[in-house]
Amino acid sequence: MNRYWSEVAKSLTPYVPGEQPKLANLIKLNTNENPYGPSPKALDAIREVTSDNLRLYPDPEGSRLKSAVSAYFGNIQPAQVFVGNGSDEVLAHVFLALLKHERPILFPDITYSFYPVYCRLYGVDFETVPLTEHFAIRPDDYIRSNGGVIFPNPNAPTGRALSLADIERIVAGNPASVVVVDEAYVDFGAESAVALVDRHPNLLVVQTLSKSRSLAGLRVGFAIGDAGLIEALERVKNSFNSYPLDRLALAGAAAAIEDREWFDRTRQAVMRSRDTLTARMTDLGFEVLPSRANFVFARHPGQDAGDLAQALRERGIIVRHFRLPRIEQFLRITIGTDEQCEALATALAEILNA
Amino acid sequence: MNRYWSEVAKSLTPYVPGEQPKLANLIKLNTNENPYGPSPKALDAIREVTSDNLRLYPDPEGSRLKSAVSAYFGNIQPAQVFVGNGSDEVLAHVFLALLKHERPILFPDITYSFYPVYCRLYGVDFETVPLTEHFAIRPDDYIRSNGGVIFPNPNAPTGRALSLADIERIVAGNPASVVVVDEAYVDFGAESAVALVDRHPNLLVVQTLSKSRSLAGLRVGFAIGDAGLIEALERVKNSFNSYPLDRLALAGAAAAIEDREWFDRTRQAVMRSRDTLTARMTDLGFEVLPSRANFVFARHPGQDAGDLAQALRERGIIVRHFRLPRIEQFLRITIGTDEQCEALATALAEILNA
Repeated sequence: MNRYWSEVAKSLTPYVPGEQPKLANLIKLNTNENPYGPSPKALDAIREVTSDNLRLYPDPEGSRLKSAVSAYFGNIQPAQVFVGNGSDEVLAHVFLALLKHERPILFPDITYSFYPVYCRLYGVDFETVPLTEHFAIRPDDYIRSNGGVIFPNPNAPTGRALSLADIERIVAGNPASVVVVDEAYVDFGAESAVALVDRHPNLLVVQTLSKSRSLAGLRVGFAIGDAGLIEALERVKNSFNSYPLDRLALAGAAAAIEDREWFDRTRQAVMRSRDTLTARMTDLGFEVLPSRANFVFARHPGQDAGDLAQALRERGIIVRHFRLPRIEQFLRITIGTDEQCEALATALAEILNA
Repeated sequence: MNRYWSEVAKSLTPYVPGEQPKLANLIKLNTNENPYGPSPKALDAIREVTSDNLRLYPDPEGSRLKSAVSAYFGNIQPAQVFVGNGSDEVLAHVFLALLKHERPILFPDITYSFYPVYCRLYGVDFETVPLTEHFAIRPDDYIRSNGGVIFPNPNAPTGRALSLADIERIVAGNPASVVVVDEAYVDFGAESAVALVDRHPNLLVVQTLSKSRSLAGLRVGFAIGDAGLIEALERVKNSFNSYPLDRLALAGAAAAIEDREWFDRTRQAVMRSRDTLTARMTDLGFEVLPSRANFVFARHPGQDAGDLAQALRERGIIVRHFRLPRIEQFLRITIGTDEQCEALATALAEILNA
């Protein structure tokens, strides 16, 4: 800290992303990346725009990407789509544009740990709402006075999903505030609330291309909602950075969204591997929460989670361990290829039998 | 506007970037893009990382890019470098982390029009300081109580540059506040204040790859200063978006910075074209401010600037006309290739003789 820092800079507690180790030959199951590469059509689209035209600014509106998102969902107009530099940037703008009000916002006590970080960045008051003892969101807990509501569906790091009916209960129960559904993991088996957007002007859905489109390295996310909500996001974005998406990201993202076949094949493969891994870990004595995401969240009654994570690391496998209240005995394990899942299960069996 | 907007969202006046027309065959001299493509080595570096590894997150620290910037300047350590999604994003973080204090910040009355937009976004008070009648910054005007100082060098849209001695006067005269030198255009003939960074812990220099590295389409900028200032920026960045630079941008930017030969050849060509165009326009009766940037800022005593811009547009040439006090009779014209500059001069001659 030094004398030149603003009070905001002094007060922050920055988010700590999962480790990005620079070693090769690790089985990296700690940041929920997709084990399969992106659509080859996305790579082709990037190659096509890798040219002298990079001297020119990108389209500040991202019109072609918005059209691709709109066409993918079918019931959505481009004016209902906002695009940004990863869903983290989209969420940041959401906190400032739509969740900063007099009353505190609500989110689960166990959830994406970036939410309280955004709150501190922008001076947004918040209250956390405990998950049930089975780590589920109880919709009725969110129907009370608030400045906004945000939760991931499926929730992170639990992997548990709400039904569309439960989500609609929360949205309809909060007509005076914005309800944000953060669907980073929705494509691995949950239902998207985009289907509800036309009925609820206070519903905003956020998605990312980092997980189900295998493009964590390209940094593209989007939000979908009533055009009035989108306009507020555009105003903040255009007061921050006119061109958050480069030409390569715009082209690659649009092509990835248009390649439904690749998307369906790879996400189905991840879901199958998840079910196999869940069964293997259950056989090893783990309690595995029912996951609709590309990870499982699990604890073992006879083994400390920190020790397990360390023993896995010694075997070249990295998983995520949050040292946080209520979940300090859980590990969050990204679904890898079948071979990686098998290597993980074998390592866990060895550690447990040692 | 609707009921869900935050007070901040309601109060904003977003920045309006120069038009990005979707028509082909225009001579586009309105957004200060480089007429030459980026280094072929940058394109090769992008092609090399266009692979299945895009499924993985990028390095959140941008270490290799910071090393490339550090090596380019020589006297700078990687811990003195901050990287972001274009210098616009870097500047946004600077306003929140280093310029938001009790006293108002100072910047010129005629300058980059994004500065007051950032101020409104983050609630930063500001006072503008008039340029001289010749549109120059007078250093002594900035030596008075303030919460920070920011100006471009060369200034935009005037193109006029301060000497390093004048910049050091401003920096040394403000030991209690941060002085930000926005060097978007510095490589076209001005002196970089990076040379002063080691002597002044309150100096922050911001640069972009959009202009002199021909990478407006890739969105990369950086800041250089004392490690204490950089740490404040990292804290804000890590409370906003852990991964603002995608894998392609990180690779392309590092390679572009390492290719000094391409950089020198293209910026020298732009400077030569600028001098030729300045002479041509002076012959046509224009007053052209002395420019150290990749644009000229000029007015004609006998022609309204708005009419001139419109007449150029009818001839397929787009320039930038700011309808702002003191400069409403000026046009800002980006330096194109020699052929484009010649086409512009020919069109201007036609219009003036019509």
